Parts: sequence; structure tokens; C-alpha cells
Amino acid sequence: MQMEKNFCQGFSAAGIAAGIKKNGKKDLGLIFSQVPATVAGVFTKNLVQAAPVLLDRERVHSGVCRAVIANSGNANCSTGAQGMKDAIAMSGDIAKKFDIAEHDVLVASTGVIGQPMPVKIIHDSIADLAAALKTTEDGINDFAESIMTTDTIPKIISVSGNIDTKAVTITGVAKGAGMIRPDMATMLCFICTDADIEPAMLQTILTDSTDNSFNKITIDGDTSTNDTVLLLANGLSGAKIRHEKEIEIFQNLLNEVMIGLAKMVVKDGEGVTKLVKVKVEGAKTVEDAARVADTIAHSNLVKTALFGEDANWGRIMMAAGRAGVKLDPDKIDIYFDDVMMAKDGMGCGQEAEALVDVVLKKPEFDITVNLNMGSAKDFIYTCDLSVEYIKINADYRT
Amino acid sequence: MQMEKNFCQGFSAAGIAAGIKKNGKKDLGLIFSQVPATVAGVFTKNLVQAAPVLLDRERVHSGVCRAVIANSGNANCSTGAQGMKDAIAMSGDIAKKFDIAEHDVLVASTGVIGQPMPVKIIHDSIADLAAALKTTEDGINDFAESIMTTDTIPKIISVSGNIDTKAVTITGVAKGAGMIRPDMATMLCFICTDADIEPAMLQTILTDSTDNSFNKITIDGDTSTNDTVLLLANGLSGAKIRHEKEIEIFQNLLNEVMIGLAKMVVKDGEGVTKLVKVKVEGAKTVEDAARVADTIAHSNLVKTALFGEDANWGRIMMAAGRAGVKLDPDKIDIYFDDVMMAKDGMGCGQEAEALVDVVLKKPEFDITVNLNMGSAKDFIYTCDLSVEYIKINADYRT
Repeated sequence: MQMEKNFCQGFSAAGIAAGIKKNGKKDLGLIFSQVPATVAGVFTKNLVQAAPVLLDRERVHSGVCRAVIANSGNANCSTGAQGMKDAIAMSGDIAKKFDIAEHDVLVASTGVIGQPMPVKIIHDSIADLAAALKTTEDGINDFAESIMTTDTIPKIISVSGNIDTKAVTITGVAKGAGMIRPDMATMLCFICTDADIEPAMLQTILTDSTDNSFNKITIDGDTSTNDTVLLLANGLSGAKIRHEKEIEIFQNLLNEVMIGLAKMVVKDGEGVTKLVKVKVEGAKTVEDAARVADTIAHSNLVKTALFGEDANWGRIMMAAGRAGVKLDPDKIDIYFDDVMMAKDGMGCGQEAEALVDVVLKKPEFDITVNLNMGSAKDFIYTCDLSVEYIKINADYRT
Repeated sequence: MQMEKNFCQGFSAAGIAAGIKKNGKKDLGLIFSQVPATVAGVFTKNLVQAAPVLLDRERVHSGVCRAVIANSGNANCSTGAQGMKDAIAMSGDIAKKFDIAEHDVLVASTGVIGQPMPVKIIHDSIADLAAALKTTEDGINDFAESIMTTDTIPKIISVSGNIDTKAVTITGVAKGAGMIRPDMATMLCFICTDADIEPAMLQTILTDSTDNSFNKITIDGDTSTNDTVLLLANGLSGAKIRHEKEIEIFQNLLNEVMIGLAKMVVKDGEGVTKLVKVKVEGAKTVEDAARVADTIAHSNLVKTALFGEDANWGRIMMAAGRAGVKLDPDKIDIYFDDVMMAKDGMGCGQEAEALVDVVLKKPEFDITVNLNMGSAKDFIYTCDLSVEYIKINADYRT
């Protein structure tokens, strides 16, 4: 995978420390498109939704976007009618500054739930934010930092490829850390491309790549009220994405960006020391495979054993057994990477365990569970549950 | 609640250190009924089931039981055909020793999954185990200790009441700690009574009390492969439980024992510092209330906030929102004990927060979520998720 940080042409970005966060770090960001871009969005499925999510959900229908303002330090969620007024005010500040339509500005927030937005701080920072816009890598770096909460590193992936002799770039930025699970978009992810794509097709392509990336990761099984993925396409490369062949190339490039970002999000999950791909094979249906993988990936007992580098495959059996899927425990095989740890539901003994101990020390590995009941399969990325996770989340608001 | 430890008449119990556990603590226990008792059982719904669960599930159908042999240190699960042979051998050892039918001996195991049972150690300890039987409080204390794994205290509750001028006693013993969630029986729970009850009715009564007790608690959302609740009734009090009036009194006494034990199990959950009753009111249906309560009770982000004594009601909103129940976030009220923390989906401010901070310091309190959409309600007991939980479970096998 290419991990360049070249920023997609025709976009500029900024991130500044406005004073929303108490620690003085960057907390206000802006992505700006020189020309009107088409836009698509995927949002949280949580019924409790932050004001900016409700606002963006409405506004992306137009299919047009010029700017995205984002902040960390406050989620603007469970803030009632005032929260919606505040989100609209944020977009209004940007619209006024750049003389664009308020409706073409999208808003994203992440941070503490249930506290009023410091709109005055944001309002007073708009001039600085606009002045900080850069078309270079530095701009997107600053933006990536400005949306971080408990993230330890900014997350940016940029890829380029040729579509019909035109060079197309896709640049994505994400923030994550906690409250990530499938059936959700992600925390926040913003993707810019210079390809030329109609809004309806852009939405189809984004939904597809989301299902292959952010809907395949889990950290703590909790889902955020603010999860948002936005994809902006300004067409400046001249590469028109209209037919199957171009769509396929573009979708592959987008997958590269989004799967890469999704894995970075899990790896940087709160207190995470292991990135584990849970693969379930030999299921009767894909749904069965997904349910078993999901249950294993969310089991606190499995996740603590991963943290402890303990080859406790019995807990994987236990989790599979409570997935609500018909299975035969005596047929289950379990592998850690390529090492078979259990066959026909029974342990493979000390020698296998010694080999698995080596796998468990790696920062990244696969667990494969073969149900031996059919040919369907699915997977999900998960992580361990560590002492650090508890420490981070016990004191998040203080 | 009466917390006497008088052991129910006609039963004797023992617990010894046989050497199954490496730490030299008690690990083998026996409950013996002087006369054939009727028996009922509730077992794990996990599809991966330990050999003793499969064995007991079959044997309780007869409705008769004389003895229960239980061990800690090894779960005899994922042990294949040999595991079943070993469970049968354990019952055979007891049957031979007391000259009773093998079929009338039940078996329960708890501990590590996927390792062969040390049947020779058990076989060689049967004489000592039988010799240790006592009809006094000491006997049941020893038994309670012998089934402990990560439990920090033995759990015993005994209550007495008059039914039709006869004094009836119910004595219950439980072990828990991790892997507790509803839809499961519990970890291990053994209840003895001197009431006279037919097996079919005994089963109905036990299932009812299980739904009110062990199916209303959760620690980590994981479900054990070994969960077993057994209720033995030897009839020696002469109190016949046949009609509605006697059944009601007996059911209330049994509830007292089982709800008490269930709460002890949560309080003694791995690394638990808080026992929290999550009550959901104002739901359209009991199922809706249960789903919302369940999702809040299992949210790692809610549970870590409880550990941190952080009044992070936004996480309760978030969990409610992902429960899969139709609700209106703007109608939700949240209370910590009697303090209203959020009204109509918005925080009640600093003063309320100061009052909630006091509640959060208590070892036991209620969280009430009113959806204000109907009149149905339900509840579940949960606990916090602590640094200690991770430490215990990361290294369980080592």
C-alpha cells in the first residue's frame, strides 16, 4: 500500500488550537474545496445522534459540498435544540468567511457528550482557521491532528492511480480510538478526491467501501453518536468515473485508503497492543460466519487473553458457542496464524501451544475458526482489551 | 434478608484440597442427601457445553438425585469423548463409595477449558472427601470454598420459613466471578431444601427463580460453558409444596436465596468495585426495556465510567441509542439513585452532577433510565469494569 501524504489537488486544509480542548492541542479543523465538489456520506446508526450528524445527513442530499468544519473536545451531542443552532452557526461562520452557501458547509464534532458547544471560541477562531489553510501535506497533517481525541497518532492515507490516462488521487483522514464497532460508519473520516463522480454513484461507492473497511472493525463494541464518513470529489483531475471499468479502479483505490485507515484506527484503539483479524470459515452462511466472528471479536474474556498473550482457545470456543449460531463444538478447528491450536473442538497439546505463544507475541496476527459445517466465511478486525483501556476510559471527562 | 448459614436438614457437605488446583486450595466438593431427593436443573445456553453439563442435563430428567460432586481448577470442557468418560467416572467413584446408583450422582466442574481432567487425583481423594462430610455449617462452608475459582469469598445463603406449620429451610451455595450474563443459568449454584416437592413442579419453580435472579445479572457479557443451577429437595421437613399458597411461600423463600446469591456473585465479580442496578422504565414493551437495560449494562464505556466514578451520562445515552429499540433521545431522563442527571435528553447541569458524584462513590446504587414512551419496565444488575478485571483475565491460565 502506498502511504504517501500528498494532498489531493484542489483541496486545502487547516487545523488550529482554538481553545476547545483544555490541553492546548489542536481542536478545530477545516477542509476546503476550490470548486464545488460532489459529496456522499455514511453516518452512525445509533439512534442518539449528535447535532452535526443530523445536519450533515440532511445537507449531503444536495450532493454538493464546498467545506467541512470539524472540531474535537466537544461532540455537540445530547445538546438539544441549542446544539443544532450551534452546528448551523459553525457552518454559517465558514460560509460567511468564504462567501459560499451555508448549505454547502458540513460540520463534524467529536469529544465529550452532553456539554454545550463553545460557539464563541469557534466563532472567534474562524479568521485564524481560514488563514491557516494550506494546499500542502502540512495542511492535511494539521487537520488530522485537530480531530484527534484519545488517538495517539494522526491518521492519513493518500493513494494515486491512473484512470483513463488521468492521474487520480484519493486522500483520507480519520480519527478513532474508542467506540468503534461494525454497523457504524466509524468515528470521523474525511476523504477527498480529484476524480469526477456524480453524487448518486459516489454514495454507492462510499457505502461499498465502508462495508469493507470501517464496518469490519471493532474496538469496544460501543457505537458513537457522532460517527461520520464524508467523501468529496472535486473532478479537477478530469478523470470521469462513469462506467464499470473506471468504477472498479476507483473503488479499489478507495478501498486501499479506507481499509488502511480502518486498520490504523484499530491499531491506535485505546490501550491497544494487538491488531487481530478474526476469520470464521466453514460456516453455513455468511451471516453465521459474521455472527461468530463478531461474538469472538467482542468477548472481553477473549480480548483480555489476547492482551495477556495467553493461548486461551477455550474462550474462543465459549464465545463461538454463545453466538446464537447452530454449530457443532466437536467439529471446530482453531488456528493462530498458521498454527493449529484446536482440532475437532479439542486442544492440540503442548507443542502447538509453544508455537502459538510465539504468534501471540506479534503485534498483528490472525485467528481462524473453522466451523467445518459449510463453505461460507467472513472476518472482522479486533484488538485486545488492556489495563490502559480502562485507565483511559475511567477518567475521560476529567 | 436472613443470612444464616444453618445447613438444611438431611444434607451433608464437604470440601477438600485434592490437588487439582496448583495453589493447594480446596478444589473438590460433595453434597450428599441422606434420602433420595427430587431434583431440578437449569443449564447454560451456550452451545459449547462442558461434559458434566451434558451429563447432568440428561440425568436430571429422572427427577432423582442423591449426591453432587463438584470440582474447581478444571472445567472438563472441550475435552471430547474422554471428558464425558471422566465426568461419568467421577460420578461412579461417588456411587461406589456410598453404594448408590451412578445415575443419581450429578457432576459439576469449573476452571480452565480444554485440559484433560485429573481423574486419578479425584479417584484417589474420594475416601478423604467422604470422610470430610459434615451436616453442620462447616460442611457447607468447606463445599463453598471448594468450588471457588477467582471468587474472593464463599457465597452461602440459608433462609427458613413456615409452610403449613412446618419449618422449611433452603440453603444455597454459589460461585461466580467472571463469564456471567443473562440467558445463562449462572456459574455454579447448588440449592438444598427439606421441602417436599415433585420434580416437575420443582423445575417450574427453579426456572422462575432463575429468571428473577441469575438471569438478571451480568459481569462481562460472556457466558460460561459450565453454568449449572441444581435444586435438590429431600422432603424431610414434611412440608408438602403442592398448591398455589405453599408454592408462593416457597417461591418467595427461594427468590430470597437466589437473588441474594446472584447479587453476591456480581459484587464479587472480577475486579468489581460497584454493584449497579440498571432500571429502564417508560418503555413500550418489557422486551424493549430489557434490551436497553442489557445494552447499557454491557457497555464497556459505561462500565469503565462507573469504575472511574465519572457521571458520564452521555455514554448511557449512547448505549441506549444502539440497543436496537425505537426511542426518542429527546425524551430520555436519567437518574443516579434519586438524582436526576439528564432530562429530555439533556444534562441537568453542575448542581446535579455534584449530587451524582456523591452517589457514584457508593458501592451500590441504581441507574434509572426513563424512555417516557410507555409504561413497561425491566432491570438488570451489572458492575464496573476495572483495571483489576483485565489483570485477572489476562493471566488466568498462568
